[in-house]
Amino acid sequence: MTATNPNLIEYIDASPEVKAVFDDIMSTRKVDSVNNFWKAIARDPATLRRTWESIKQIMAPGGALDPLTKELIYIAVSATNQCAYCVASHSSSARKKGMTEEMFGEMMAIVGMANETNALVSGYRVALDEQFK
Amino acid sequence: MTATNPNLIEYIDASPEVKAVFDDIMSTRKVDSVNNFWKAIARDPATLRRTWESIKQIMAPGGALDPLTKELIYIAVSATNQCAYCVASHSSSARKKGMTEEMFGEMMAIVGMANETNALVSGYRVALDEQFK
Amino acid sequence: MTATNPNLIEYIDASPEVKAVFDDIMSTRKVDSVNNFWKAIARDPATLRRTWESIKQIMAPGGALDPLTKELIYIAVSATNQCAYCVASHSSSARKKGMTEEMFGEMMAIVGMANETNALVSGYRVALDEQFK
Amino acid sequence: MTATNPNLIEYIDASPEVKAVFDDIMSTRKVDSVNNFWKAIARDPATLRRTWESIKQIMAPGGALDPLTKELIYIAVSATNQCAYCVASHSSSARKKGMTEEMFGEMMAIVGMANETNALVSGYRVALDEQFK
Amino acid sequence: MTATNPNLIEYIDASPEVKAVFDDIMSTRKVDSVNNFWKAIARDPATLRRTWESIKQIMAPGGALDPLTKELIYIAVSATNQCAYCVASHSSSARKKGMTEEMFGEMMAIVGMANETNALVSGYRVALDEQFK
Amino acid sequence: MTATNPNLIEYIDASPEVKAVFDDIMSTRKVDSVNNFWKAIARDPATLRRTWESIKQIMAPGGALDPLTKELIYIAVSATNQCAYCVASHSSSARKKGMTEEMFGEMMAIVGMANETNALVSGYRVALDEQFK
Repeated sequence: MTATNPNLIEYIDASPEVKAVFDDIMSTRKVDSVNNFWKAIARDPATLRRTWESIKQIMAPGGALDPLTKELIYIAVSATNQCAYCVASHSSSARKKGMTEEMFGEMMAIVGMANETNALVSGYRVALDEQFK
Repeated sequence: MTATNPNLIEYIDASPEVKAVFDDIMSTRKVDSVNNFWKAIARDPATLRRTWESIKQIMAPGGALDPLTKELIYIAVSATNQCAYCVASHSSSARKKGMTEEMFGEMMAIVGMANETNALVSGYRVALDEQFK
Repeated sequence: MTATNPNLIEYIDASPEVKAVFDDIMSTRKVDSVNNFWKAIARDPATLRRTWESIKQIMAPGGALDPLTKELIYIAVSATNQCAYCVASHSSSARKKGMTEEMFGEMMAIVGMANETNALVSGYRVALDEQFK
Repeated sequence: MTATNPNLIEYIDASPEVKAVFDDIMSTRKVDSVNNFWKAIARDPATLRRTWESIKQIMAPGGALDPLTKELIYIAVSATNQCAYCVASHSSSARKKGMTEEMFGEMMAIVGMANETNALVSGYRVALDEQFK
Repeated sequence: MTATNPNLIEYIDASPEVKAVFDDIMSTRKVDSVNNFWKAIARDPATLRRTWESIKQIMAPGGALDPLTKELIYIAVSATNQCAYCVASHSSSARKKGMTEEMFGEMMAIVGMANETNALVSGYRVALDEQFK
Repeated sequence: MTATNPNLIEYIDASPEVKAVFDDIMSTRKVDSVNNFWKAIARDPATLRRTWESIKQIMAPGGALDPLTKELIYIAVSATNQCAYCVASHSSSARKKGMTEEMFGEMMAIVGMANETNALVSGYRVALDEQFK
């Protein structure tokens, strides 16, 4: 079974507007092609541009969190949401930025535990402590 | 409206088994009381013990990820799952471990973006790139 | 804070169509009023009727699963989805049908664990075993 | 990998009860076969009948929302829930009802943004404004 | 219980950068104050600006979908994610744009049904039909 | 498309610590191999051990809920979370423990209905009844 859509916009077929975004992705990331995610959302150039500008700003180095920590957080959310593509692509990015097997294991242990305790809090109907208000 | 349950096990009413876990939580965390989460799941002593032993192991210092990064990941999952209690309690823990307003802001920016792109991948039915397989 | 909506249809103000459903809920469940859930969705009589007919059929005794097991499954889904109202109302129903504190504790332990392992499977990208295909 | 189940009830093997529902689906939708979804849930004839009667009522033309808007809402929920099958089947239905590439793009932009701001609200613990109560 | 955070940036206390965004929100929407959502994320001016620019672009009139349809999609996602604040604020916006009680009821009927069939597809492990590939 | 990871730890390649857990899984379950789930999380031996000890305790016979009911709850959560692997593996376990087609159908009917009503409660903003507080 595949539930994926073959409708990807390749660079050669892209409009100038889409090409400009693809070029910026490739030069920012120092790669020579863009992932299927970008080729897919290129079907809506406005979404392509807006999403890239946002990702570029958020994942940029130089903030309070280092680039690897940012990728770990991205994987944590994606695993929680069962987004197989997102887990695969951001795990790849994280490894390039230095994620070790130990880091991956510790991050996933927290993700698993957080999903467990989130459900326990809901089922046990836990009241908020005064000091957290 | 409150959908919470007043059924919390206070230390003074706890069985020796539950007291032992409460004591370990307080001495490990150097605090003089336990949060409502622990008082709530104490209704099932086996769940209390198992959950505490797991959390204690996962959040212990000395691993590949520092304690603050672990709390950021915990908040990221909890915000994704809409668990208000979990966001509040782990935000409090994260601040005690050094989370600044800038770190919180950057973490949440990634959480928001990851939830957005997770949905885009699903709706656009993005096929996995060869290099991620 | 309250994010709830005061817009509930009370029996005395209900149209004959809505009253007929309320009457059937009360006589089927042997109670003398209906929960806010029914008063709220009564704003759309078609949804009220359809939802009640479905719930009545699904939760009816005499099937392969006993009524208490059905309530446990309802709570398990609701805790996973962070639906505070649903957890509260179905926990009340489950207790009336015989749910003990031990049963609740064991059910929630599984709910917590399932949410944890669901996330682990996603993050570790576990391939399906041949025998499960 | 496939995690799907080959256990589909084909028309030729169906009981009279299941055949009657299949016939109604085909005549209502003016098609000459039913999707795998219906063949799968036909394993439980009561669920098949109840689900079809509900879908038929909800998606029927003539209401306050036009049929295409209804399909867009269906895709929005399915993309949020990461249901690949549901996104694929309802995207197909939406296209038959007139969904253009522009409509799809705008709908998905909102779905992405809503998933982002839902997480931001949770993480920032936003209090409800007085005027929304 | 309240799990909300009182930490809102009021206009009078805002930095010029934040004030500029607040001003643009108020003039675009023709209102004389901004909702708590904007006051909350103003704690991170970059997130405030990026989120507003995205929302402004996505919800702008003149596209393939009318403004009311966009609000319905926003509510559909928010109800699915159990985001109480988001349901409340976008229901308010939708009513101002013309959402009738009938439209709300039909939209929610689809949201409920989509969440149901999404789960059925997952549990029954429905294989993708050839024509959807 | 496959989004799975081939990185599984086979018994023959496992460290003594991992082998010990694999041995305990096989002897407890009276099987001669372990599922891919265990081979995958064996990449982090601490997570393997902790997860197995928890599952072993939670799913052990002799509690207030019988082993089949526990598997039904596990499937209910997994279907709600769209975890295809988890649905497949726990459906297999459930059948070995006596789950009939009728039981599966009734369980899934509740899972579908609970997901529907969870969303309705959220969208209709249902206030908690006094008697549930």
